[in-house]
Amino acid sequence: MSEFAELAARAEKLDTADELAGTRAQFVLDEVVYLDGNSLGALPANVPGRVEDVVLRQWGRMRIRSWDESGWWTAPERIGDRIAPLVGAEAGQIVVGDSTSVNVFKALVAAVRMAESTGSAGSGRDEILVDATTFPTDGYIAESAARMTGRTLRPVTPAEVPAALSGRTAAVLLNHVDYRTGRLHDLPALTAAVHAAGAIAVWDLCHSAGALPVGLDEHGVDLAVGCTYKYLNGGPGSPAYLYVRRDLQDRFDSPLPGWNSHAEPFGMRPAYEPAAGALRGRVGTPDILSMLALEAALEVWDGVSVEAVRAKSLALTDFFLECVGAYVGAGLVESLTPVAHDERGSQVALRCENAGDVMRRLIDRGVVGDFRHPDVLRFGFTPLYVGFAEVERAARVLGALLPG
Amino acid sequence: MSEFAELAARAEKLDTADELAGTRAQFVLDEVVYLDGNSLGALPANVPGRVEDVVLRQWGRMRIRSWDESGWWTAPERIGDRIAPLVGAEAGQIVVGDSTSVNVFKALVAAVRMAESTGSAGSGRDEILVDATTFPTDGYIAESAARMTGRTLRPVTPAEVPAALSGRTAAVLLNHVDYRTGRLHDLPALTAAVHAAGAIAVWDLCHSAGALPVGLDEHGVDLAVGCTYKYLNGGPGSPAYLYVRRDLQDRFDSPLPGWNSHAEPFGMRPAYEPAAGALRGRVGTPDILSMLALEAALEVWDGVSVEAVRAKSLALTDFFLECVGAYVGAGLVESLTPVAHDERGSQVALRCENAGDVMRRLIDRGVVGDFRHPDVLRFGFTPLYVGFAEVERAARVLGALLPG
Repeated sequence: MSEFAELAARAEKLDTADELAGTRAQFVLDEVVYLDGNSLGALPANVPGRVEDVVLRQWGRMRIRSWDESGWWTAPERIGDRIAPLVGAEAGQIVVGDSTSVNVFKALVAAVRMAESTGSAGSGRDEILVDATTFPTDGYIAESAARMTGRTLRPVTPAEVPAALSGRTAAVLLNHVDYRTGRLHDLPALTAAVHAAGAIAVWDLCHSAGALPVGLDEHGVDLAVGCTYKYLNGGPGSPAYLYVRRDLQDRFDSPLPGWNSHAEPFGMRPAYEPAAGALRGRVGTPDILSMLALEAALEVWDGVSVEAVRAKSLALTDFFLECVGAYVGAGLVESLTPVAHDERGSQVALRCENAGDVMRRLIDRGVVGDFRHPDVLRFGFTPLYVGFAEVERAARVLGALLPG
Repeated sequence: MSEFAELAARAEKLDTADELAGTRAQFVLDEVVYLDGNSLGALPANVPGRVEDVVLRQWGRMRIRSWDESGWWTAPERIGDRIAPLVGAEAGQIVVGDSTSVNVFKALVAAVRMAESTGSAGSGRDEILVDATTFPTDGYIAESAARMTGRTLRPVTPAEVPAALSGRTAAVLLNHVDYRTGRLHDLPALTAAVHAAGAIAVWDLCHSAGALPVGLDEHGVDLAVGCTYKYLNGGPGSPAYLYVRRDLQDRFDSPLPGWNSHAEPFGMRPAYEPAAGALRGRVGTPDILSMLALEAALEVWDGVSVEAVRAKSLALTDFFLECVGAYVGAGLVESLTPVAHDERGSQVALRCENAGDVMRRLIDRGVVGDFRHPDVLRFGFTPLYVGFAEVERAARVLGALLPG
């Protein structure tokens, strides 16, 4: 049996044994091998009907009454509770709304204020540490949060965090999975280190939620944010979410205290009084069409365990790396993604010459990943709808188009 | 002819002569008299089909390619340019995205920073004036902006603004139309007074855009924000917008510098460098479903002049007040909305005993307005789809259910 045939046969066996194979039917897919769900998740099949109902009936016929009668007003916390089990959180700690960038701002400013309130007066917690390898927006927003709270921003790699922590550290903003390399950082150990230094840990879950267990409650994370349009399949620009650990909620002092976070929003009172609980993370009127599309999208998780998703994710990326090793000429690509399972998210990043051009040609041949400046081919693996035969095909197509 | 018959006959004539009567067919409406378009605009008939296309084809089939090929990435500025003529702005000065609250924060912090950069060092511009009668969220957010920029927030009524302005004023946040009373404030005169004091004028257009001419460019407004789900009919929680006058754009220093406002967003650079132009007002990934629903909704404005809308709006509110005077027993309601046209927005607010209960009964009888704590019946008049016969009916139903 040729190597091609052997790997294709293995893929078939893996697909047959896949306990998540059934969830693929809940998505709108076609002959394309879609390995870009870490950028924009595929369309869940129940979303179009839900959106049609929201537009035609809830907005079109019920109009203003839907704020109460269709549950629009409470959607941010209701959908937050739906996300909660996917990131290892009990209910009542997550609200959905705004973009990830806006939520990073809320979380980081609130974190600095919490750190202030725990330390003694003039305790000198004048530094924010930020993941130097983070997706850029987190760094830009962290810079603004530092500027507006009079702190100094200090970019360090996640590996450098333990040594960089000190009595000066107010808060630390870290990514659970690196958007570029796919490296998974050690959330439990880093959170513990941040806490040992008396600082507040803020995690960005954009590239981990829905792909692997996060364990927010278990590991005592203070604050977290994440988007919903990647592994949660909420649709383009669907609203992000904010997690505030229950025992910190009374101290969550938002820099964006919009009327939706007021204790009595329809009291129309001139003085701000924050609501109890996670609602403090709300700001203005929530974006209902996108919010309720996300709610429908989250239904595909009914009966799915995040552990099963993680097991399949690792099997997919293992198999992809094996196929790339078999099909792609030596030295043509170099994986930036760690081999060790406990250091790997749900994507594979391959450094490659002319990566932008290579990705365009891959897409022309029906294999969709994305290109990250300057030289990275990025492939995301969504276990809910990606199969092993597709993985084998993607590597085969890549091997065929790179110089032999 | 009885007074009822006379007013009903007048309504019919007014409807026949209405040059905007034709736009009603572009909305999904029914037998309900919908006078709550100042809270949530009715559904434009072309929106459901557009949203279906965005979901099924752009997201479902094109997936990630739609960021370029379906124009998702440039939607915030493209749709901003579509709103521009409705508020008297040339293209290139408005971006759509985020909630009104978030945009108030961007605008007010940026305004303070602009005021700083115009004055001499230590010029003592340590105060922000805010409309004390504003929709509460503006006040809450202004308080946060003041706190985070080290300024003092001073609430004053719009009438008190001229006397309150001084060399200490950094920025002034005002509402064009009061959400509660429907009072229209004098944007040209107040903006001129703010400028005479060397301060920056920020206007909230939530209750004026789409209902009356705003003239942002003509009157030299510095910064403005507004929502799109009232008179612009964008749908529940559709994204808000931010106007930054062209000659101020280089000095617009956003407190929320997300990656979408970077000069090279896909360069993934660790250092922030703001884009040129209105794009600086962008933050994170825009909410595409709601954004493109709004884009479709704005098409109903093709060929419609804001001046015609204003003329009809005044005719509608005049006629409503006349009908209320005729049908409602003396002393049972009191209009909070100014009689003078140049002080009136596109709504009528009636103070009424048991207003919450009265509004519930009105809604049960097919007349939808809203209740504002503690004693206000609020009726909004959207000239694009409200007719005079409906106005007469609304007043008649109100008169019939109040004690005789």
